[in-house]
Amino acid sequence: MTDQATTAPVTDAEIFTGHEGGKLSVAATRPISDPRDLAIAYTPGVAKVSRAIAEDAAQAKRYTWADRLVVVVSDGTAVLGLGDIGASASLPVMEGKSVLFKTFGGLDSIPLVLDTTDVDEIVETLVRLRPSYGAVNLEDVSAPRCFELEDKLKAALDCPVMHDDQHGTAIVTLAALRGANLVLDRAIADQRVVISGAGAAGVACAKILIEAGVGDVTVLDSRGIIHSGRDGLNPIKQELASRTNSSGLTGGLADALKGADVFLGLSSSKVDPELLAGMADAPIVFALSNPDPEIHPADAARYAAIVATGRSDFPNQINNVLAFPGVFRGALDAGARAITENMKLAAADAIVAVATDDLGPDRIVPSALDPRVAPEVAAAVAKAAVADGVAG
Amino acid sequence: MTDQATTAPVTDAEIFTGHEGGKLSVAATRPISDPRDLAIAYTPGVAKVSRAIAEDAAQAKRYTWADRLVVVVSDGTAVLGLGDIGASASLPVMEGKSVLFKTFGGLDSIPLVLDTTDVDEIVETLVRLRPSYGAVNLEDVSAPRCFELEDKLKAALDCPVMHDDQHGTAIVTLAALRGANLVLDRAIADQRVVISGAGAAGVACAKILIEAGVGDVTVLDSRGIIHSGRDGLNPIKQELASRTNSSGLTGGLADALKGADVFLGLSSSKVDPELLAGMADAPIVFALSNPDPEIHPADAARYAAIVATGRSDFPNQINNVLAFPGVFRGALDAGARAITENMKLAAADAIVAVATDDLGPDRIVPSALDPRVAPEVAAAVAKAAVADGVAG
Repeated sequence: MTDQATTAPVTDAEIFTGHEGGKLSVAATRPISDPRDLAIAYTPGVAKVSRAIAEDAAQAKRYTWADRLVVVVSDGTAVLGLGDIGASASLPVMEGKSVLFKTFGGLDSIPLVLDTTDVDEIVETLVRLRPSYGAVNLEDVSAPRCFELEDKLKAALDCPVMHDDQHGTAIVTLAALRGANLVLDRAIADQRVVISGAGAAGVACAKILIEAGVGDVTVLDSRGIIHSGRDGLNPIKQELASRTNSSGLTGGLADALKGADVFLGLSSSKVDPELLAGMADAPIVFALSNPDPEIHPADAARYAAIVATGRSDFPNQINNVLAFPGVFRGALDAGARAITENMKLAAADAIVAVATDDLGPDRIVPSALDPRVAPEVAAAVAKAAVADGVAG
Repeated sequence: MTDQATTAPVTDAEIFTGHEGGKLSVAATRPISDPRDLAIAYTPGVAKVSRAIAEDAAQAKRYTWADRLVVVVSDGTAVLGLGDIGASASLPVMEGKSVLFKTFGGLDSIPLVLDTTDVDEIVETLVRLRPSYGAVNLEDVSAPRCFELEDKLKAALDCPVMHDDQHGTAIVTLAALRGANLVLDRAIADQRVVISGAGAAGVACAKILIEAGVGDVTVLDSRGIIHSGRDGLNPIKQELASRTNSSGLTGGLADALKGADVFLGLSSSKVDPELLAGMADAPIVFALSNPDPEIHPADAARYAAIVATGRSDFPNQINNVLAFPGVFRGALDAGARAITENMKLAAADAIVAVATDDLGPDRIVPSALDPRVAPEVAAAVAKAAVADGVAG
């Protein structure tokens, strides 16, 4: 695998050809080429395997694919930057996710896109299908429904559940901040981080940064800084208000950025680069909105010591693919019943550790295609699962 | 592929090793090896494909795998001869089915096993998942629930739905009877067929044989011959009583078999071979119960002109794998919204046609592994879909 940014832009023809017929295929792990193969894989042989599982449910782990299968679940309500485009239109993204699970995590994975946006119906559907799979990757579900959906799924299912737009983003963002701090020799505990966007990613990033010991976090939504004096906050934002913004800032982005050390863009709103002038000296700027960063990296670089985006054609790409394949692989390797906060923190540390010998201002995380990342993340996550007592 | 019966019995060790880790794997149709591949298959490229589908739902057919994906659905209530062993224990069978869909039909397929036996909940679940797949193969659902479930699914879904234990069995049984009649130079219209068993397979076989023009059909359940004078018949059996047994037979199997031309065993009850002595001269005997035929083929051969079973280690194996891969392949090739009676009849004819030049008393249908069968069945089924006006 190469690590170069793409040289010429990808054309529409290349894109549509690359999706023709879909991007996934199901194969048999062992070929059927004679009557003996058929008698083993199907009748009459399979009856013995089914009977063994009926007598001891734990045998399903060994003799079916379910226990290692990740379902990539979406209702199509918040697809990339496209919004609520529906389940069918979300399927190419979910197929892509399954491709990445296989490529980087060596995990089998199938997309399940749902023609309902009712949280309880989605939970009910996945509960009914529980014997079919081993873990749930939630994807592209709109906020604030995604918080309720993830909470209810975790309560209803005895397997790893992770909404990647929240926690995958949070893990790679924490990894990138740790990488940037290593390069700049700064400490997370001294930093004030401003997060623009209180959707799935913004909320999860705020939480993981607080857990990781960031000095202070200030979060903004479309109405400005979230603070406990604001009216009409939903329960998610009320909780954010109580855990962030310890100095009680009010106002807009300019107010929040004054003296801040880190800007983290997780909304799709454009940000005037001039605002960065008000930040602390040589700040860190992550403009992660895709495909259009909140601030163009060239503009941000006029003020910032380190700039990162979500795009592969600029340096310092912060991409969830650094996290989710290894996180799920580690959780399934450990037979984990859940994905804990410590497992996520361990994943972030493992991502940085892969790149430590090779860090620089233009390389604060490993390449999204670095094949060393997922195995290291998986090992760290599995270890944390054991330490947290959630391993099987 | 070879066509020999297995020589030594398959051992338990071979069977369990053959199922270790499950029998399916999901692969990417195109590898991800550099940032350009990633930009095409995932962000940012995939957004264009999703947007194209959001703007024109018909594009999903071209740019996702859903339209060619068969879901193999079971609630585990009637698994092989094992009965109601539950969803998880049924999964090895469903994985095996997916292997056969790929091997013979070239179709991608995933098992979905459900932790509910409520017919309406199963329908509701598949309706919610509708954007994820292209066709439903129902499997190992207990009678009479399977009839209600299939009817409700057909009404709720605009795609091919087939309960294979019913219609796959009916198609291959009709094909085998046509093959036997070709060998013996007999006509289906002159024949009286006795079916032992009024479960999923028995009911579907009775119906397809009537549609194919069999002279008369008599069906027995555990209480004896089904006739319109019997009390306590469920609606399925009431319908059977009104369409079969035109001479108004009553009593048990001995009464039914007197003078009958064909015996079709589709229950797991043993049958005394002596009863075959009462049949018409040189009858046809299909003892299809698996793994133990109702009558051992050697015993049946003392009376019958042609004997068939469901087993690969005796001549004339009647196996659903001759039907379902080609039926679904043909239905999906045609973009069919349903699987009609004519499509099933066409499938049966196509199966016999493959073997016509090569028929004999020990070869009334092609081998279960004959690679010519599925493409021929698919072509015939697709043509019938067009003729019936259900093609896309």
